[in-house]
Amino acid sequence: MALLLQPLIGDNETWLKPLRQLLPGEDIRIWPNVGNAEDIEFAAVMRLPDGKLAEFPSLRMICSLLAGQDILLSDPGLPDVPIVRTDDQEGSESMTTTVLVHVLRHYCQLPQYAAMQARGGWERLPHRWKKDTNVGFLGLGLFGAGAARRIAHEGFNVMGWSRTTKNVEGVTSFSGPQGLMEMLRKTHILVNLLPLTPETRGMVNREVLGALPKGASLINLGRGAHLRASDLYWALDEGILSHATLDVFEVEPPPPGERAWTDPRITLTPHVARLEYDIESTVLHIAKAINAIRGGQSLQGLVDRRRGY
Amino acid sequence: MALLLQPLIGDNETWLKPLRQLLPGEDIRIWPNVGNAEDIEFAAVMRLPDGKLAEFPSLRMICSLLAGQDILLSDPGLPDVPIVRTDDQEGSESMTTTVLVHVLRHYCQLPQYAAMQARGGWERLPHRWKKDTNVGFLGLGLFGAGAARRIAHEGFNVMGWSRTTKNVEGVTSFSGPQGLMEMLRKTHILVNLLPLTPETRGMVNREVLGALPKGASLINLGRGAHLRASDLYWALDEGILSHATLDVFEVEPPPPGERAWTDPRITLTPHVARLEYDIESTVLHIAKAINAIRGGQSLQGLVDRRRGY
Repeated sequence: MALLLQPLIGDNETWLKPLRQLLPGEDIRIWPNVGNAEDIEFAAVMRLPDGKLAEFPSLRMICSLLAGQDILLSDPGLPDVPIVRTDDQEGSESMTTTVLVHVLRHYCQLPQYAAMQARGGWERLPHRWKKDTNVGFLGLGLFGAGAARRIAHEGFNVMGWSRTTKNVEGVTSFSGPQGLMEMLRKTHILVNLLPLTPETRGMVNREVLGALPKGASLINLGRGAHLRASDLYWALDEGILSHATLDVFEVEPPPPGERAWTDPRITLTPHVARLEYDIESTVLHIAKAINAIRGGQSLQGLVDRRRGY
Repeated sequence: MALLLQPLIGDNETWLKPLRQLLPGEDIRIWPNVGNAEDIEFAAVMRLPDGKLAEFPSLRMICSLLAGQDILLSDPGLPDVPIVRTDDQEGSESMTTTVLVHVLRHYCQLPQYAAMQARGGWERLPHRWKKDTNVGFLGLGLFGAGAARRIAHEGFNVMGWSRTTKNVEGVTSFSGPQGLMEMLRKTHILVNLLPLTPETRGMVNREVLGALPKGASLINLGRGAHLRASDLYWALDEGILSHATLDVFEVEPPPPGERAWTDPRITLTPHVARLEYDIESTVLHIAKAINAIRGGQSLQGLVDRRRGY
């Protein structure tokens, strides 16, 4: 029996060296060199072509290497085996740094000062103090809760919305449609870290953006499919949003000529919110899951297919 | 006898209201309405025209409202009375936020991603981990030490250089010419927070910049006079610096046509590093100093004219 591995980043040896130490004697095959499909017992993958995982009759478990499960779950032929997350605190710490730099950029009005530099201006802009700045998070999962806690620690007023009410230190928690509107009406900086599910697809729409106070700003670190570009442009044109920072986009990369490339009120980064990827930690999760399933123990970090994360 | 006040920011009432509570009955005059010059016992000012302070024969103390003392000390007619700093932890906290956002911007390569957006590119850049990123501070005074401690807490390797060796938690301290070169050779992100004195004027020169490893970056939050623009351009052209963020410039604002306005490897902000100015806290310092001098107690936060800060 074998483990099929699709390395997410880095070279193969960076994955194989710790894996061989943790799973001595394991037959590890690197995608796309599957060999005999009947040998594949475990698959540690980002995303294989649709229907591919269904070709492994002995498959007992999938280890998902991506933080968001939407990509894996969109495979219509996905076999009915447990899916285990390999993500952890390490990924959360990295996302927190990205949230921090963007929230501080928006708070310090660096996008506005960049526009000022471009037109040769030199004047101090009116400034809202940290203690008067409300940061609202969409999503309080592993990444959202970690980042929200950190932004609260930084001295901002922090609120968060999620499917169910959460208890996060220093963060006012909201849930449900009414809770969403209540949070949005007070939000100066909106950070999206929702998982992509059928319920959240397109959720950051005109109704949501329209509930923000004029001059608010948006940081989308979730998925491009949470936010239609046309809704974003509408909110900028209406003066609802003063700036938007997008690490994800409806189509990636955005097509040439797309307004987001050149609008000075849009900061685009190429899906790099997760700065650091700790291969060793991921490999540890893979080994743990394999040992658990072989030892008949319960699996940690199981993905709930119905909820989508 | 009277206190002459030159409010730094905000309207006069924001200063007068708390001052009147703390110093009941005090005759407070707002610059330039001095009245009888012989009445002025105390002056709480940013900077009056050269020679003006010398016109107050009863002057017993100057409260300096600016963080840097170079501007006040450059008055050739500055009378020989104690100068007291009114700056404190509040100012330091505000400067720390500015250091944090810029260090994180450079670390996350946001300037490089902005240039990528401008040319329609979409690719992940190679990334150095926090634990492998060395941040070097020039200056470990109130602002420098506070910011350095914070950046260390963030997970970076932090070093700091100052006139004398300092003991700052989590920060490797350097001093002297050899210590400077030793620190620079290891510095990926150089943050200047030196006070401006005859010794530090023009100190961030070609020798200093040339000691940095190729691809390092610079954040100047000190004074424009620390860094000649020609030396900065040289370091960018040589590939020593990959990016520079300047909150101060040789001449402010930089003249029209100055390269710094348009070079994509230079971020300019209009001398706004100190985001928040806590008038109440400053006013408290002024009242304390006046009460101390009247009560014959020793003064806190005395400026050392010889050292220049």
